[in-house]
Amino acid sequence: MKTVVILSELNQELSVLERPVGFVPTMGYLHAGHLSLVERARKDNASVVVSIFANPTQFAPDEDLEDYPRDIDRDLELLKKSGVDLVWIPTVDVMYPEGYQTWVDVDQLTKLLEGSYRPTHFRGVTTVVSKLFNAVGPEKAYFGQKDAQQAAVIQRMVRDLNYPIEIIVCPIVREPDGVAMSSRNIYLDQDERVAARSLSRGLGLARDAYQNGERRAEALKKIVRDEVEQEELAQLQYVSCADPENLEELEGEIQAGLVSLAVFVGGTRLIDNIILGK
Amino acid sequence: MKTVVILSELNQELSVLERPVGFVPTMGYLHAGHLSLVERARKDNASVVVSIFANPTQFAPDEDLEDYPRDIDRDLELLKKSGVDLVWIPTVDVMYPEGYQTWVDVDQLTKLLEGSYRPTHFRGVTTVVSKLFNAVGPEKAYFGQKDAQQAAVIQRMVRDLNYPIEIIVCPIVREPDGVAMSSRNIYLDQDERVAARSLSRGLGLARDAYQNGERRAEALKKIVRDEVEQEELAQLQYVSCADPENLEELEGEIQAGLVSLAVFVGGTRLIDNIILGK
Repeated sequence: MKTVVILSELNQELSVLERPVGFVPTMGYLHAGHLSLVERARKDNASVVVSIFANPTQFAPDEDLEDYPRDIDRDLELLKKSGVDLVWIPTVDVMYPEGYQTWVDVDQLTKLLEGSYRPTHFRGVTTVVSKLFNAVGPEKAYFGQKDAQQAAVIQRMVRDLNYPIEIIVCPIVREPDGVAMSSRNIYLDQDERVAARSLSRGLGLARDAYQNGERRAEALKKIVRDEVEQEELAQLQYVSCADPENLEELEGEIQAGLVSLAVFVGGTRLIDNIILGK
Repeated sequence: MKTVVILSELNQELSVLERPVGFVPTMGYLHAGHLSLVERARKDNASVVVSIFANPTQFAPDEDLEDYPRDIDRDLELLKKSGVDLVWIPTVDVMYPEGYQTWVDVDQLTKLLEGSYRPTHFRGVTTVVSKLFNAVGPEKAYFGQKDAQQAAVIQRMVRDLNYPIEIIVCPIVREPDGVAMSSRNIYLDQDERVAARSLSRGLGLARDAYQNGERRAEALKKIVRDEVEQEELAQLQYVSCADPENLEELEGEIQAGLVSLAVFVGGTRLIDNIILGK
């Protein structure tokens, strides 16, 4: 496994990789969710490239960029064991040198859900993913369903900008207690960790209700909301039942829906989601 | 020479082209300026791809998209004679299908000069060029110095977004009377065509003055302005003397400068420029 930082090294190493190349962009502090993407990429491609970059432009000034957990030695060990060929770890200077001024924006999809609470977040995501795609030039790229809106936004960007890259969205990986894998789970203390279970528990109850015939968007959201609001340490930011394609909020009876939520548990913002009826 | 419209045909034909590929994006109605780009691309690369697309998103509602001259048969004949391998002629539906919502923006460089008079123009340019680059994936791409700011903006975009593409900017090609080649010259009647000569004449006088030691930005601009303002049919929109790299307006004594201007001759907006001291 090779590790590179600057673009010329990256190009050098890319030029000797066997095609097709599968690409997994990450912000590091890897968990089983990331590794499931790597495993799928390994299965689908002759070579696997992973990037590790805690992208500052997708964090708002009041968010946790400074505290975002890092453990590069452990990350590299995990990636080596997973059979990754090349790891790109650009610095902020490599990605945003002086005079940097170009942005990629997806308009409508990014205004909803997460975007309504994090208005500059997706501009940072689409810009950095665009840069990563241009530099790595993979045949396929892998994203987690945990960031459901991110996956939808990236798929839209790829289609709109004619990227010749297939986007593969992989299922959420969960801890044994149901909590969705996230690098941010490390922030939670023991009590908060218990409260964090309410997200997946609420979603599970909504899925059960759907399977038992409940189709009203409001009722499904109320099931999730009630479950989270039982937890004193959990502060619900939103729960949504949206069209899985265009992410528009649904009302009344639904066929299929992306049920998603964001919750502050202590100072930690957690998200989770489930797709019903697809 | 092959001609394709939709992306799947393009990909099919690209896959059998010898590398490296040189790419010349155009809006059609080709003239000797375009053909000089094709010639240079032919010399530099194993294969040459040209696109023809009058991109609606770089025209403002009050601009000349509807009237923009077209002659696709003549264009294809010229390109065939020039040894082009593949011509991509996407429709508007291919480039901007329903639900399209992704934009590429270069921030500062696009606010100046042309951008201050055409505020949505460069967003359209960078977006479509990004799409063309992603779809064609060339090693090199060719642009004309006539659109000096466009060339600077594209170079910035390529650097910022990590496109692995070398941008080659080729000199302005002029008619025997000095008028810069432009598809829009067809709009000019005989008297307007005479008035149009004042752009290159003014720039030539500024170059002469610079070579004779004039270094004051204001004085150089005045030479151009005076020459254009002698023409009753010409209405100067702006004349600028700017830093060739960051396009910021220069004052006082200059070392190097991009002297550029925009002039309405009748209803036709013409631009021209010259670089002094480089």
